[in-house]
Amino acid sequence: MKTKMLATAICLLLPIGAHAQTTEELKKGSNNTANVLNYGMDYGQQRYSPLDQINKKTVKSLVPAWNLSLDDNRSAESQAFVYNGVLYITTHAATIAVEAKTGKQIWKTAVSYPPETPRIVCCGIINRGVALYEGKVFRTTLDAHIIALDAKTGKELWKEKVIDWNDGYSQTLAPLIADGVLLTGISGAEYGIRGFIDGWDPSTGKHLWRTYTIAGPDDPGAKTWPGDTWKHGGGSTWITGSYDAELNTVYWGVGNAGPWNAMVRAPGDNLYTASVMALDPQTGKVKWHFQFSPNDMFDYDSVADMVLATIEVGGKPTKVLLNANRNGFFYVLDRASGKLIAANQYVKTLNWATGIDKNGRPIESDLTRQVRTTEKTAEIWPSVWGGKAWSPSAFNPKTGLVYANTLEFGMTYTPTRPQYRAGTTYWGADLTWVFPKDKNVGYLKAIEPLTGKAKWEVASGTPRWGGVLTTAGGIVFSGQSTGEFEAFDADTGDKLWQFQTGSGIEGQPVTWQQDGVQYVAVASGHGGAYVVYAGDERLANVPAGASLWVFALPAKASQ
Amino acid sequence: MKTKMLATAICLLLPIGAHAQTTEELKKGSNNTANVLNYGMDYGQQRYSPLDQINKKTVKSLVPAWNLSLDDNRSAESQAFVYNGVLYITTHAATIAVEAKTGKQIWKTAVSYPPETPRIVCCGIINRGVALYEGKVFRTTLDAHIIALDAKTGKELWKEKVIDWNDGYSQTLAPLIADGVLLTGISGAEYGIRGFIDGWDPSTGKHLWRTYTIAGPDDPGAKTWPGDTWKHGGGSTWITGSYDAELNTVYWGVGNAGPWNAMVRAPGDNLYTASVMALDPQTGKVKWHFQFSPNDMFDYDSVADMVLATIEVGGKPTKVLLNANRNGFFYVLDRASGKLIAANQYVKTLNWATGIDKNGRPIESDLTRQVRTTEKTAEIWPSVWGGKAWSPSAFNPKTGLVYANTLEFGMTYTPTRPQYRAGTTYWGADLTWVFPKDKNVGYLKAIEPLTGKAKWEVASGTPRWGGVLTTAGGIVFSGQSTGEFEAFDADTGDKLWQFQTGSGIEGQPVTWQQDGVQYVAVASGHGGAYVVYAGDERLANVPAGASLWVFALPAKASQ
Repeated sequence: MKTKMLATAICLLLPIGAHAQTTEELKKGSNNTANVLNYGMDYGQQRYSPLDQINKKTVKSLVPAWNLSLDDNRSAESQAFVYNGVLYITTHAATIAVEAKTGKQIWKTAVSYPPETPRIVCCGIINRGVALYEGKVFRTTLDAHIIALDAKTGKELWKEKVIDWNDGYSQTLAPLIADGVLLTGISGAEYGIRGFIDGWDPSTGKHLWRTYTIAGPDDPGAKTWPGDTWKHGGGSTWITGSYDAELNTVYWGVGNAGPWNAMVRAPGDNLYTASVMALDPQTGKVKWHFQFSPNDMFDYDSVADMVLATIEVGGKPTKVLLNANRNGFFYVLDRASGKLIAANQYVKTLNWATGIDKNGRPIESDLTRQVRTTEKTAEIWPSVWGGKAWSPSAFNPKTGLVYANTLEFGMTYTPTRPQYRAGTTYWGADLTWVFPKDKNVGYLKAIEPLTGKAKWEVASGTPRWGGVLTTAGGIVFSGQSTGEFEAFDADTGDKLWQFQTGSGIEGQPVTWQQDGVQYVAVASGHGGAYVVYAGDERLANVPAGASLWVFALPAKASQ
Repeated sequence: MKTKMLATAICLLLPIGAHAQTTEELKKGSNNTANVLNYGMDYGQQRYSPLDQINKKTVKSLVPAWNLSLDDNRSAESQAFVYNGVLYITTHAATIAVEAKTGKQIWKTAVSYPPETPRIVCCGIINRGVALYEGKVFRTTLDAHIIALDAKTGKELWKEKVIDWNDGYSQTLAPLIADGVLLTGISGAEYGIRGFIDGWDPSTGKHLWRTYTIAGPDDPGAKTWPGDTWKHGGGSTWITGSYDAELNTVYWGVGNAGPWNAMVRAPGDNLYTASVMALDPQTGKVKWHFQFSPNDMFDYDSVADMVLATIEVGGKPTKVLLNANRNGFFYVLDRASGKLIAANQYVKTLNWATGIDKNGRPIESDLTRQVRTTEKTAEIWPSVWGGKAWSPSAFNPKTGLVYANTLEFGMTYTPTRPQYRAGTTYWGADLTWVFPKDKNVGYLKAIEPLTGKAKWEVASGTPRWGGVLTTAGGIVFSGQSTGEFEAFDADTGDKLWQFQTGSGIEGQPVTWQQDGVQYVAVASGHGGAYVVYAGDERLANVPAGASLWVFALPAKASQ
């Protein structure tokens, strides 16, 4: 009791906006309901909150509490972070601190990069958020730099170059703090990069380690790359990894191999592309890896959210890693060992494989084998956008379901043999879009992890391109590309509420509680990959224009 | 009765978004509560609505119903117009039609102008709104063109050049339809233009007449301009005039003379600068004029809202014109004759004149006379921004008060003698800002027309730069430059409600009722003259980014 009282006293002494985020606080995840300190709400990226003031009964009254213009017409995929009453959010062009209760901007620090940088960014001029640690705000830049800012003032403390952007490398991800080390990934697999994950000293910006995702000549896995193909083998790491503090293991998804045409890189599995890598955060040492799509030819990038949860497997609570993979299968791995527990199809249409064998290896279909040998055109499902693209899913321990914004379309795919030129696209395939007959390109699905089956699904016409949030209030929040921020019943999928936010939503909702009020924040503002490439006429009248929304129940909104 | 039933039947036959705005509908003004067809809510620009669902009791529950990004980082000074469930709004770069109930964009038609145009626009890259008439949407462009669009599709029907923008002419105002004629004004008095008002055929774009605001050698008033000074005499007409349909008279405010240094244009009153002109809409013939500031030297531009009301004067209901003039005096004119009824100081500090004589002529102070003769520096109050700048005021017939966003600062003023060069600034004075000691640069005031006295006033620190709306619900709506959209008690000035809209508000609130729900709309998004020139540190953390907000009571918001 004495300790608890002392802790309370210390809390009272800290002014709003005090900045001393510790590893202990980061470990608490969303149990620390006053703050949002983790990408994905907690180290396991469950995007789950135990808060329930906003629940199935009350959510119908939810209203905007405030809005802040992000003064940008690019995609707003950034997650808000909150610490001691201060909210932090990013765009590609700025880092911003805001009073979480009122929306009053405290500081805004511009990010500069060479104006030519966007030519090496395939899929949206964006940034996905910060990391907060010991009074500093960390972020990456489009021209592959890491910046540390003073959380109180926004002043730059250090800035480090990661690698030369002219060679096709870029960064959009939120960094990760794990065991006191700052970890970052890299984008650019469509430009013939060689991917990696880096470790940095958050205090000084000193580079601690680099683990390549593409095995080089001296690495285990070297023989999975014929000739010099490893040099431009892709394997980007453009989404923040998750972390199990108990196992002291970071789980980081690895992108597609480059170029897409697998015959350029055959024979070989091309490790560690389209895999998840389990790393020691202090050294970057690989503990294990699991490859979802060996010698992948369909851009089945596996960077997106590696969700850590404890679920019953064969009657036993098991520490698992959950992943709705771009290849159309939903994976459950034992995250201590990396062994496969389950892998089942979660999209309606899938024709590149007939299943996953017990070792986790896809059983490729005749069609895929035919494309491999002939390099001729075929209609493949899912498309290069996958069964789920980047959009982060959420896991609700109360329902045991994973809520994911999935995609449902195919492509005609024709392999090509591209020439590598530094800083230009190195794709290796010609594509056309194949939409399903009913034009429902997107579904929000409540997926049972062990079967891949949807307990419920909600079609959205155009895909939902942002993240999902779920809560103990029995709610699933997610936004539409047409601008509606929506709340669903986590058990049934019934739509309970919506609000039109003015632009397409590609942001990641989060929630926290301050002074007895539960807030939900999401960025609105489209410009991500789907909008840029799809030419979907249903989005023709959805304007760009990024802003941050914060919602609360009406009596509480103005407190 | 039969006629009324027939009218109802016709209304029922019209689909949502039917487009046949008639002169009769335009005359109804805000009594036609389902629509917003007039700039300023009615021909008299009272910005008053008889709606009272949102009132002193209910307004505290007001919530956003929807938001629409305007995809622009310039000032959003545009007024929304509504007809049959479709809302129309503009930016400098687009005209937009929206479902008024849901915020769903129906069409957006881009406006193009030469990229060099902004160099002849002193005070914000903006547009203030449309005119609606007989199924067409009319608007002006920065490069001085008038465009007519099909209200249903947004397709361009005709486009006419008004004058060459290279000579410093531009347009930002909403056009006016009066007696079936389309009237437009012009901006550019800071670039040595010769101002005018134009009449056009709304069906074809045919030019009908042009009335110059600067008397030429053959005009009455010729001798008020020495030598060739009339050629670059200013007299812009950049705010939409008001209209009395009974008197069939348009009242149009005229801007400052150019250059500001009056000694360049002395001796002479420089007609019709800093005046209001009463015109016949069919011919443009001047019925009468009233000059507020003869041979003005302080940029006491008189374009802003000429409000038409009927008030008791000496116990007799009188048709008056009300104007909170930039020169710091509040004027009441008999609008049939143009005769002065009252003119009283409404700002706290005013030192350029000691009063207005019974003929309406300012009694200049010794200080002003000294500046005239010596052309030396003096500290003048109000500044060139006036006691009220463009921000449109509102008149509530129930309280008899005019609600105006006023300014309270002075300047050090040094006359200069500029050279005229086409398309460049032709100002004629050096200025520095003088803020009051308490830093309260802006006040929302409830002004008694006949005395100029404030029944109540609310200081806002930075000035409110947008318009005011007042209603039969006893509410005054207006926005802050710091983003809060606010509601005040029209009788007491007590603040009843606010919502943070994400950027500074410079828009013009309007209200209407659809399917039993009262809506209030206002654009948010700063970038107007104050923000551009003031360097007010209190606005440093207010981001740009334009969007349209629509509010309603919570149970109604989602109907």
